[in-house]
Amino acid sequence: MSMFELIPKLREASPLIHNITNVVVTNFTANGLYALGAAPVMAYAKEEVADMASIAGAVVLNIGTLSTEEVEAMVIAGKAANKKGVPVVLDPVGAGATSFRTESAQRILQEVDVTVIRGNAAEVASVAGENLVVKGVDGGAVSGDTQELAEKVSELFDCTVVITGEIDVIANEQGTNLVRNGHPIQTKVTGTGCLLSSVVGAFCAVEEDVLKATTVAVSVYGVAAEKAAQKTAELGPGSFQVEFLNELSKVSEADAAFSKVERVDE
Amino acid sequence: MSMFELIPKLREASPLIHNITNVVVTNFTANGLYALGAAPVMAYAKEEVADMASIAGAVVLNIGTLSTEEVEAMVIAGKAANKKGVPVVLDPVGAGATSFRTESAQRILQEVDVTVIRGNAAEVASVAGENLVVKGVDGGAVSGDTQELAEKVSELFDCTVVITGEIDVIANEQGTNLVRNGHPIQTKVTGTGCLLSSVVGAFCAVEEDVLKATTVAVSVYGVAAEKAAQKTAELGPGSFQVEFLNELSKVSEADAAFSKVERVDE
Amino acid sequence: MSMFELIPKLREASPLIHNITNVVVTNFTANGLYALGAAPVMAYAKEEVADMASIAGAVVLNIGTLSTEEVEAMVIAGKAANKKGVPVVLDPVGAGATSFRTESAQRILQEVDVTVIRGNAAEVASVAGENLVVKGVDGGAVSGDTQELAEKVSELFDCTVVITGEIDVIANEQGTNLVRNGHPIQTKVTGTGCLLSSVVGAFCAVEEDVLKATTVAVSVYGVAAEKAAQKTAELGPGSFQVEFLNELSKVSEADAAFSKVERVDE
Repeated sequence: MSMFELIPKLREASPLIHNITNVVVTNFTANGLYALGAAPVMAYAKEEVADMASIAGAVVLNIGTLSTEEVEAMVIAGKAANKKGVPVVLDPVGAGATSFRTESAQRILQEVDVTVIRGNAAEVASVAGENLVVKGVDGGAVSGDTQELAEKVSELFDCTVVITGEIDVIANEQGTNLVRNGHPIQTKVTGTGCLLSSVVGAFCAVEEDVLKATTVAVSVYGVAAEKAAQKTAELGPGSFQVEFLNELSKVSEADAAFSKVERVDE
Repeated sequence: MSMFELIPKLREASPLIHNITNVVVTNFTANGLYALGAAPVMAYAKEEVADMASIAGAVVLNIGTLSTEEVEAMVIAGKAANKKGVPVVLDPVGAGATSFRTESAQRILQEVDVTVIRGNAAEVASVAGENLVVKGVDGGAVSGDTQELAEKVSELFDCTVVITGEIDVIANEQGTNLVRNGHPIQTKVTGTGCLLSSVVGAFCAVEEDVLKATTVAVSVYGVAAEKAAQKTAELGPGSFQVEFLNELSKVSEADAAFSKVERVDE
Repeated sequence: MSMFELIPKLREASPLIHNITNVVVTNFTANGLYALGAAPVMAYAKEEVADMASIAGAVVLNIGTLSTEEVEAMVIAGKAANKKGVPVVLDPVGAGATSFRTESAQRILQEVDVTVIRGNAAEVASVAGENLVVKGVDGGAVSGDTQELAEKVSELFDCTVVITGEIDVIANEQGTNLVRNGHPIQTKVTGTGCLLSSVVGAFCAVEEDVLKATTVAVSVYGVAAEKAAQKTAELGPGSFQVEFLNELSKVSEADAAFSKVERVDE
């Protein structure tokens, strides 16, 4: 049986994914999670995030348009999730672009037991305290070896690290996978990284093996993007966004044929 | 003349609908109201909500991503609307999922004279103090008879109650209607319930008979959804969302032929 | 060489555009900027806006869903931009609809050296202290001569003024241009004005001649809208929004043929 068996498992469970995310991507994130088969909820108030996180299948913390108050809510939600054994995904959007973002991401990592960090190389390096230049929040380049970076940060924070880029790297103490799915047009549509972090949360909600769950999430997501990009090649990013939601709703076990995963730690 | 005569009436008046709504659905709500022919405005600051509510045709309060401050603004807006006779719609998103949501919805109902409550069965039961399990914010199942629930809550808060589900129930002291329009794909697109609450507000802005206004709103909305679902059946939820806006802009008096309304209190 | 030479210049530079904008249009704004070839970022927290504005190519301040705290962040961002010579665009959404909006826009203009004001006639008149009735935030009509209004406000605040409407007017001390591009369906899709303000910022980031930069921005934007409207004429506003993003990604120097700019101050 292929790893894509997790797709029907996710759809049957329809896990509640509690997102504390940025104002740019809320709608796209909710619709992407619905399309895939999960049940999204957004809740930000300190008065309720612990309650919501406690009944969720996963909690996703995204600092894309953070405020001090929102970071405090993220810490409360994260701690509540930790207490119940609910997986927590951190998306350190724009870490490195301002010290406020870098420090907020680091604060969350200090106070919450984060299951998965998902970002681009520059963001992940920034939360680890590397000094790298970040341009924008959806781009980001990094010098050095991305695989080494993922493995180092995984060890540092004792969690799974997903670094997305031309080739995606997923590393934790069990091993390291490369995923070669996806399409460049994803970098021209806002929220494609943020939604992936929430999709990672959704798969972690239905599979305890985090290396497997995150690898499937990244590959499934990339396969859906490839299909959407192919169908909208002549059209543009507006149509891609729409078709991508369609493809997320259709992706299935049979799409394992398009998965490009390589184990590289052995 | 059919009840759908309210469609051209709405388009001619183009009422200003003041929404205090959640961050997930703002864009979809504004575009949905524009498509139908209304004029949306979002305003949240305590310093201005009374001014905005006073010049609006309807005020829509949606607690989907509430905060204590936002609930205070909702109360201010609601009271200003009451003073001017502007109809107020409450969408108690996720009531029952956390006590903060349930209590906030109840606080609004205590301090504001709400014209219409629009939610799913579990949300409506929660604001009424029933003990029911809510899963997610767009789903929600309820035991017992939904018609009875709608009528009971309508009496309790002396307002019109719209409970949406497979069959929609609309009840106030004048009577109870069932509406059998709509399509299951609506549950896979975020904000379809929230936008309906705003559409209810738009029809209440142009028709004083609230039972008629809300019934037409629910039926028109469901007819547009059915048409969009039919046109995008092979595509998916991304395309449905786009086509649904198209259909809202095209829906007309002639579509009364597709309306499925049943009076059940007689 | 035509003024549309700025399109490839923008795409090559891919300037970072820092938006402090309203919750309704964040996604559409980010995707529109990406489609055109710029790099959007949204950052709102007082702790980081100065850092972000300092590294940006332009800063766009949009009061569509303002709060006192957000206005303070706008002032901080604007001052940081001024210090670095980064152009600042102000979109006074809904000025005139509530005194809070009018006064907030005026406060920003007092404390920040604004490069471009972009609004409809009623909004622009309101920030200038005229007494005009505003209905809604995307509409707005004004009595009197729009060209005179633009020139007067330009002189008053020593900046470039862009008033959009059936005919767009752009005025600063160097001259006044009229632009006759665009399509009426833009008024049925939320955020088309807001995104234009951000696109104005993107062109100002790559061209120091502000009259030229803003005129090209308005004309390019209008040409993309015309093409999208033509392709989706039978469909509706949902499809227009999607196709408009596609067209923004495709607009090129060759489209100068469709540009309708008239110099009127000579």
